[in-house]
Amino acid sequence: MFLTISFFIFSLLSLSHASVVDFCVADYNAPNGPAGYSCKTPKKVTADDFVFHGLATSGNTTNIIKAAVTPAFDAQFPGVNGLGISIARLDLAAAGFIPLHTHPGASEVLVVIQGTILAGFVSSADVVYIKTLNKGDVMVFPQGLVHFQINSGRSNALAFVSFSSANPGLQILDFALFKSDFPTELITATTFLDADLVKKLKGVLGGSG
Amino acid sequence: MFLTISFFIFSLLSLSHASVVDFCVADYNAPNGPAGYSCKTPKKVTADDFVFHGLATSGNTTNIIKAAVTPAFDAQFPGVNGLGISIARLDLAAAGFIPLHTHPGASEVLVVIQGTILAGFVSSADVVYIKTLNKGDVMVFPQGLVHFQINSGRSNALAFVSFSSANPGLQILDFALFKSDFPTELITATTFLDADLVKKLKGVLGGSG
Amino acid sequence: MFLTISFFIFSLLSLSHASVVDFCVADYNAPNGPAGYSCKTPKKVTADDFVFHGLATSGNTTNIIKAAVTPAFDAQFPGVNGLGISIARLDLAAAGFIPLHTHPGASEVLVVIQGTILAGFVSSADVVYIKTLNKGDVMVFPQGLVHFQINSGRSNALAFVSFSSANPGLQILDFALFKSDFPTELITATTFLDADLVKKLKGVLGGSG
Amino acid sequence: MFLTISFFIFSLLSLSHASVVDFCVADYNAPNGPAGYSCKTPKKVTADDFVFHGLATSGNTTNIIKAAVTPAFDAQFPGVNGLGISIARLDLAAAGFIPLHTHPGASEVLVVIQGTILAGFVSSADVVYIKTLNKGDVMVFPQGLVHFQINSGRSNALAFVSFSSANPGLQILDFALFKSDFPTELITATTFLDADLVKKLKGVLGGSG
Amino acid sequence: MFLTISFFIFSLLSLSHASVVDFCVADYNAPNGPAGYSCKTPKKVTADDFVFHGLATSGNTTNIIKAAVTPAFDAQFPGVNGLGISIARLDLAAAGFIPLHTHPGASEVLVVIQGTILAGFVSSADVVYIKTLNKGDVMVFPQGLVHFQINSGRSNALAFVSFSSANPGLQILDFALFKSDFPTELITATTFLDADLVKKLKGVLGGSG
Amino acid sequence: MFLTISFFIFSLLSLSHASVVDFCVADYNAPNGPAGYSCKTPKKVTADDFVFHGLATSGNTTNIIKAAVTPAFDAQFPGVNGLGISIARLDLAAAGFIPLHTHPGASEVLVVIQGTILAGFVSSADVVYIKTLNKGDVMVFPQGLVHFQINSGRSNALAFVSFSSANPGLQILDFALFKSDFPTELITATTFLDADLVKKLKGVLGGSG
Repeated sequence: MFLTISFFIFSLLSLSHASVVDFCVADYNAPNGPAGYSCKTPKKVTADDFVFHGLATSGNTTNIIKAAVTPAFDAQFPGVNGLGISIARLDLAAAGFIPLHTHPGASEVLVVIQGTILAGFVSSADVVYIKTLNKGDVMVFPQGLVHFQINSGRSNALAFVSFSSANPGLQILDFALFKSDFPTELITATTFLDADLVKKLKGVLGGSG
Repeated sequence: MFLTISFFIFSLLSLSHASVVDFCVADYNAPNGPAGYSCKTPKKVTADDFVFHGLATSGNTTNIIKAAVTPAFDAQFPGVNGLGISIARLDLAAAGFIPLHTHPGASEVLVVIQGTILAGFVSSADVVYIKTLNKGDVMVFPQGLVHFQINSGRSNALAFVSFSSANPGLQILDFALFKSDFPTELITATTFLDADLVKKLKGVLGGSG
Repeated sequence: MFLTISFFIFSLLSLSHASVVDFCVADYNAPNGPAGYSCKTPKKVTADDFVFHGLATSGNTTNIIKAAVTPAFDAQFPGVNGLGISIARLDLAAAGFIPLHTHPGASEVLVVIQGTILAGFVSSADVVYIKTLNKGDVMVFPQGLVHFQINSGRSNALAFVSFSSANPGLQILDFALFKSDFPTELITATTFLDADLVKKLKGVLGGSG
Repeated sequence: MFLTISFFIFSLLSLSHASVVDFCVADYNAPNGPAGYSCKTPKKVTADDFVFHGLATSGNTTNIIKAAVTPAFDAQFPGVNGLGISIARLDLAAAGFIPLHTHPGASEVLVVIQGTILAGFVSSADVVYIKTLNKGDVMVFPQGLVHFQINSGRSNALAFVSFSSANPGLQILDFALFKSDFPTELITATTFLDADLVKKLKGVLGGSG
Repeated sequence: MFLTISFFIFSLLSLSHASVVDFCVADYNAPNGPAGYSCKTPKKVTADDFVFHGLATSGNTTNIIKAAVTPAFDAQFPGVNGLGISIARLDLAAAGFIPLHTHPGASEVLVVIQGTILAGFVSSADVVYIKTLNKGDVMVFPQGLVHFQINSGRSNALAFVSFSSANPGLQILDFALFKSDFPTELITATTFLDADLVKKLKGVLGGSG
Repeated sequence: MFLTISFFIFSLLSLSHASVVDFCVADYNAPNGPAGYSCKTPKKVTADDFVFHGLATSGNTTNIIKAAVTPAFDAQFPGVNGLGISIARLDLAAAGFIPLHTHPGASEVLVVIQGTILAGFVSSADVVYIKTLNKGDVMVFPQGLVHFQINSGRSNALAFVSFSSANPGLQILDFALFKSDFPTELITATTFLDADLVKKLKGVLGGSG
């Protein structure tokens, strides 16, 4: 008898339109906006939408930086859409490093799972903050500042990095300059690098212009 | 003559695309996103979109909690979409109560219109804040914390509750556990309740699993 | 035995510095900042900090507008500090009205408790949205727009208004112009009102300049 | 060889769905929501989307206020969509003025490029802040407050104004009252103006009702 | 020569007052506010402020839940103050579990480092989302919703959890009810639990009232 | 008579504690927090607090970049504190340029006042967006992305840049690397630059390490 009666308690709520309550799992086939992707219909959401398996395996570090960043941002992991948080996996082979980079829209927290990582960032006041991190150590990188991570041990290193945004972005400075079609004459005009060097690095990283 | 001339003042503004200026009345037939529903075309918006009549009549309190929550959230009241505020009506018959619950995404302000209400919440530090509220008294419940309201008088009580979000959510703890399909073995594994009790309460509230 | 053991579970949490967790009750004797007042030491916070009695009695409507606004903003009600919500009481005697005004930093939701209120607002596109509200009706006023409330019934009217900010502000246009020291020559230079009228209204409302 | 290898570094990123990373150029043909317009497909975005030429020429000041506001808000300038900033151009002919107005959702920073401008605003506490600004001077107008700008020099004045929102809105008080269909009887009921004046100003500015 | 000259470039910046640029390391001896702790003087900030060692060692799981939560929130880790992100370590011995709980002000992302964890949450619509997570799997728990983690393997499990706030809060439901001084008669009045059970659980967990 | 009566209307408001309503002019002598500086007592605030004269004169461009950035951020201009907006002046002598830089916490809108400026930014996807801007042209630079401005004309160029934050920060990449004490071995380890070049540029820009 209680069951029948309790059906009436929140009748208005049950009659409501599909609402953005609690979460907004990304629907990649609908328009996206400044706040993220459109929401999948709640009825079609399952537990699988909130779980991501892509960080369980090592990224491929057979590359020029001997490192890999595997993201679980809103573009890969629909469950974090609109929730203001995301995560990624860093694999650093011996001598591997994540080149100087920024996340334009987020602060980052890194925790070392394996190995030893030398990490640091530079502030707007050109002050450098650098530390060697061992297993279990945590470091925070404030929003938008240039930072780096280097495997300073002899074996592989592994870390997880979390972000204060579902889509933090990742801008690797050398790639922005030398893996893009940034005209060489404008790079030399806005840095203290000369054209020969710029052309050489574009050759290495695949840039043009 | 002035009229003709003044037509030119903000010509660019008038030629603009339909813009998200001032308000964004919910269009329930377009996609929604993390920030709320899509906006109705401004030309189709009328004063009716900003008025809600659904709180004018008492909710049905003939139920197991002798109480009713009638929401005017963005899913019911299109005018509040995107404005960071919403409201609901609480009807508490004699001996009625709103069971322990949270609003996952909003703080709440309650004002007593009729009767006497005993209300309280518990902080993250497990400190309990409880007060008896009379007609005209206001109480605030900080975001996301477990709280309750009890009709502590002899007659009906009425209150309005406002929220710092257009879609505050409402999670009644007993319903989350005993009106859902939360597996009994997982409830007992994550609370200090035993299986017999869980099964009994699921029988009362309509849960399964 | 359980008690002793459980003491260790969150030892780090208990050893923490007084933290801004859950709420930040205003400490009026410490500095305030853009986000609100400093927080009272959690240990000194009591349930009374979250309750406000000042809206329980009618405001004094024996004045030029036959109306009263009684606020429970963060400056009056320490418990709402930093929580993004606040409330106020509107008393409108017969023929009373709240003159055209804005809340610079908040949207507003109004619920009629007694009487009949004619309310409306004007959008940036100079479109006017007006409705007559009866007991229990709700109306939303989007952030920052000019709006008004008029007692359109014969008896007293009462409403509660909630805001999407703990400090919404209240700017009554006629008071900004005619109850201030806004120089008459600048008022006439930036409105279509003439100096005689401005001086007359300053006489009524108490302005100078 | 490096090029081939480096292709693997961020393979997951390249395989991702079109993401709201870095920017969200407005797509005026898709739905908009509380946070702004939908995003144009990143592949179709060009440098032109981030540049606006509409402020390069003077606005037409042959009108009743001898002034013009030319906006580059998200409805005109797709590149600012979702970025929390926008800009506009103020042209003030001799004796020109921007009547008392508010921006419901943004603070404003003004910089004088040419001429002399007398500007001011009124706070919620009815305090008036007024200054004469010369070339290069900057003034800030806090969110939502009534403010004005007057050409106090003899020649044309030019200023640029920036806003803390991509869609700040612009509500000119005299236009809200006298250029709209705001019923005269309600204007007189919510201000201290009389019906004759209201009707006269509606005649000047084009209002009805 | 260049050095001397470049000294002038940003002279105004260097002459500025200590500013909240880039970061705001917590100063635990100054007032805190709704946005977090006051900032340490930039000159006294060192790299150590951005690194936290407290998660490097296992929490003590010799307790009633065979589990430990070790937080690196702003109250413990000054570097995350104001940055909208924090992290914690979960240690789950065999049969260990984190009881049903919420974080009132944050979403959470969990990554499994060791072992197998059964985790889940309940939505406002009383829908349960549960998954078994293995090493490297990630799960997201939307803001404010009731959730749990259980060690479902035979050996110890370890996970790191990140939050979309520097002070997410942690409210364990059983502790809020049975480890606090929440009056038994009010618990029974707002849940479907009876007094005998409440008293028994208070005995186990240390509550009073 | 009206005056005396109207005195009672908002008595509660007048009796309130000094509140963070409308604005929060920076008090540089009190603690600052994540949201900005503490607020100056409202009674001591004058119109001068909202006006900044420092951008009226050209910055000194006799330096290595033949350019100057003169900021009116919250550290220089107390009136913008907490308002989410700020402004700066760019002076570019012939052949002057603002080296590649980011604003870690803000988007930027630039308007050209004099001369011709070639400006551009690079996205996270390593796509370059570049345009030549003439007098009156506006360009937006999305938050946190690397960008630059070059005087591409023959005479001086002048621009004003506004930001979506009161403290946007300014990180010039070459200065972060070569004007700081960033260890040379770590620069070479995290970029594709060699030690000889790094040392040479440190010599030019004044770095050490």
